[in-house]
Amino acid sequence: MDTQELIRQLKQSNGSKIVLLVADGIGGLPLTPGGKTELETAATPNLDDLARRGVSGSMYPIRPGITPGSGPGHLGLFGYDPLKYVIGRGALEATGVGFKLGPNDVAIRCNFCTLDAAGNITDRRAGRIASAESAPLAIRLRKVKISGVEVFVEPVQEHRFCVVFRGEGLGGNVADTDPQKTGVPPLPAVAADKESQWTAEVANQFVAQAQELLADQPKANGLTMRGFSAAPRLPSYQEVYGLKAAAIAVYPMYKGLAQLVGMEVMGKPGSLSEEIDVLEKVWPDYDFFFVHFKYTDSRGEDGKFDEKVKMIEQFDAIIPRVEKLKPDVLIVTGDHSTPAKMAGHSFHPVPVVLSAENCRPDACQAFGETAALCGGLGHFEAVHLMPLALAHAGRLAKFGA
Amino acid sequence: MDTQELIRQLKQSNGSKIVLLVADGIGGLPLTPGGKTELETAATPNLDDLARRGVSGSMYPIRPGITPGSGPGHLGLFGYDPLKYVIGRGALEATGVGFKLGPNDVAIRCNFCTLDAAGNITDRRAGRIASAESAPLAIRLRKVKISGVEVFVEPVQEHRFCVVFRGEGLGGNVADTDPQKTGVPPLPAVAADKESQWTAEVANQFVAQAQELLADQPKANGLTMRGFSAAPRLPSYQEVYGLKAAAIAVYPMYKGLAQLVGMEVMGKPGSLSEEIDVLEKVWPDYDFFFVHFKYTDSRGEDGKFDEKVKMIEQFDAIIPRVEKLKPDVLIVTGDHSTPAKMAGHSFHPVPVVLSAENCRPDACQAFGETAALCGGLGHFEAVHLMPLALAHAGRLAKFGA
Repeated sequence: MDTQELIRQLKQSNGSKIVLLVADGIGGLPLTPGGKTELETAATPNLDDLARRGVSGSMYPIRPGITPGSGPGHLGLFGYDPLKYVIGRGALEATGVGFKLGPNDVAIRCNFCTLDAAGNITDRRAGRIASAESAPLAIRLRKVKISGVEVFVEPVQEHRFCVVFRGEGLGGNVADTDPQKTGVPPLPAVAADKESQWTAEVANQFVAQAQELLADQPKANGLTMRGFSAAPRLPSYQEVYGLKAAAIAVYPMYKGLAQLVGMEVMGKPGSLSEEIDVLEKVWPDYDFFFVHFKYTDSRGEDGKFDEKVKMIEQFDAIIPRVEKLKPDVLIVTGDHSTPAKMAGHSFHPVPVVLSAENCRPDACQAFGETAALCGGLGHFEAVHLMPLALAHAGRLAKFGA
Repeated sequence: MDTQELIRQLKQSNGSKIVLLVADGIGGLPLTPGGKTELETAATPNLDDLARRGVSGSMYPIRPGITPGSGPGHLGLFGYDPLKYVIGRGALEATGVGFKLGPNDVAIRCNFCTLDAAGNITDRRAGRIASAESAPLAIRLRKVKISGVEVFVEPVQEHRFCVVFRGEGLGGNVADTDPQKTGVPPLPAVAADKESQWTAEVANQFVAQAQELLADQPKANGLTMRGFSAAPRLPSYQEVYGLKAAAIAVYPMYKGLAQLVGMEVMGKPGSLSEEIDVLEKVWPDYDFFFVHFKYTDSRGEDGKFDEKVKMIEQFDAIIPRVEKLKPDVLIVTGDHSTPAKMAGHSFHPVPVVLSAENCRPDACQAFGETAALCGGLGHFEAVHLMPLALAHAGRLAKFGA
C-alpha cells in the first residue's frame, strides 16, 4: 500500500478549505558568497508573519538533486509521485497550450521543416519561421480528415505546433519521425507495440495530407513528429482526496496540469490581483484552491535577481487578501527553485510554510530558504505536502485503532 | 531488499542492551499562539540532560500527515512498516484485551444486539448494555462447541466482545454480519475467498448456538460480527534483529502488540515505578526492553494539558533509575502525539532522544518538539528507529566490503 492508497482510505469530509499558493520558481541562490537569496532579500512582512504563526519546511520537488520541469514539479505538489506518473512530451505540449486531453487522445509535438524537391529535409526548423507565419499554417492543417479519428491541430511557437488524434484504439507508443539530421526525408511513423499500430497509420495519413496542404510553402512545406504520448491517466483530486478543487492560473500550462488531476479551472485572470478576485468569487463553492503565480519563475529564468525580488514582494502583498478568507489551511511554496544566478530551474529545495489552527509552530521567524531548514515540517519530498495539508484540515481519519 | 531484510543480514550479537522508553502520546501542541507544548512546559531535568548528552530527532510515526492508532503506531516504533504489516480490526481487538493470538487464529469483533420476535435487529448495541451485565453473557458464550475448532470468547466493554476461532484452514476474509441498520436480521457470515469458507460456516454455527444461549435475555439476545481477521504474520524481534526482547507495560493492548513481534511480556506492573521494578528484576536476562507509559496519552485524550504536564514530569523522574542500569542504548520517545488541545491522537511528529557511548551529540539542550527539529537524527519515519538503536548498540555489521 502506498501513501496515496492510504489517503484514499482515510479521507473524510468536514467542509474545511485548503489554499495552495504557488509562487513558481520562488527558491533561489545568493549572487555572492555570504549573500542572501531573492526571497531572503525581498521585504516579505506578510510571509514572515505567516512563518512565525505557522510551520515551515524545506521541500524537494521530486528527489534530492532532481531539477523538475513544470509538469513533474506540479504533479509532486499535487501529491502524485512524478516518478510513478510520467506525462509524455506530446501530452505536456498539448497541455501547455491549454488543450484539454481526453482518455482516448494521443498528443504529438510537431515541427514544421523545409523539404527539397527530392523530399529530403534541408532545414529541421523551417528557418525558425516566425509564430505569425506558422500559426495560420497550423490552423490550415485542421483541414486534414482521417476516418475514424478526430484530428486537432494547435499552434505553439515558431516552427513548433501540436497535433492530437482522438479515437478508439490509439496507443501512444510510436517512434519519432524526426531523423535528427538534414539531407534525408522524415522517417515514417512506426509503432513500437501492437496497440500503437493504428496510431502510426493515422500519423502517416496525417503527414501525407499535411504535405499537400503545405505544398505552396517556401519554408514550412513539411513536418516531423516527436513525443507521441497517450493522455496520462491520473486519479482525480476527488477520488484520491475527496476534494472539490479549483485552479486559478494565468498561463495555459498550469491550468492544463491542474485539469489533469481533475481540478476545475476558474475564470480568465490576467494578473495576480485578478487571480485573487477569482479566488474570492469562487470561495464558497470549492474545498481546495490552487493559485499559481508565474512571474517569480519568469524573472529567475531571465537571470534578473532584482526583478525577481520585486515579484516576490508583489506576491507577499496579496497574502492578507487570501488570509481574509480564513482558509483552514494556507500553504505557500513553489514548484521548484529558479535562481536568477542560474537563469533556469534548479534542483535546490523550496521553502514551504503551512498555517492552520492545529499546526505546531516552530522557531522560524521568517519565510526563506535558510530559516525553513529548521522548520517543523523538516526536509521532505513534495508528495508528502498534500497529506500534510489534509491532516491539518482535519480531513484524514486515524489509521488503525 | 527493504531495510528490514538488510538488518536481518547485518545483525550481530555483542551482549549490549537497548532500552526503548515509550511515553504514549507524549507529543503535543501549545494551547495559545507562541505558547509551549505540554513537554516543553513540563520540568524535565533528566530528559533535558539526556538530550544534552545524546542525539535528538523529530519522528513521523507512519508518514507525514498520518495519525496513527496504537497498533500502527507501535508497529512503526518496533521497526515494522505499518503500511506493509496491517493488523486487522478483530486481531487488534483481541490483542487489546490481552488475548495472545496464535498462527491458526481468526479474531472477530462482536456486538451484542437486540432482536425482536421476527429476528430483526431493534438495537444494534443492545441498549449500550453495561459491561457488568455483558461480561457474564460473553463468558456464557464460551459454552459454544464447534467440532474441529477451538472457540474463545472475551468480554470487552458494554455491548462489545471478541471471539477467536482456532483451527486449521481458517481464512480471515469474511464479510461483516452487521447490516448497519435496524429492522432487518443480522447478515449470515459470507466468505470472500475459498480459504475463508470454513471460517464463515464456523461463524454461522457460532451465531446459531449463541442465540440459543442468549434466548432468555431482554436486550442482548443476538449478536453481530465485524472485522474478521487472521492473526498478523509478523517476523519476530529474534528473527529480524537477533534480540531477546522483554516488554513491560500496564495495559493489555501494549503487551499484546509487543507479543505480536515476539517480545516476552514481563510481570504484572500496575504503575510506572512498578514497571521499573520489573525492568531492574529482568535486566540480566534480555537484550532489548520495551517499557510503555500510558498516562501521557490518557491525559492528552482527556484534553487535560496541565495533567499531561504532570504525567510527563512523573515520567522524567524515573529516568535516573533506568540510566543506573547502564543501558548501552537508551531511547526515549512516543508512539505518536496526543495534544491536549485536540483531545486525541494526532499526526504531528514526536521528539526522540537517543543516548549511547557512540552517538554523535548535537546542539539540543532540552527534550522537546522544537528543540528536536535541529537534532542529529533529523526528521525521519519511525521504521528507521530500530536500525539506529541496533547501530548505536554495535549490533549491525558493515554493509558490503
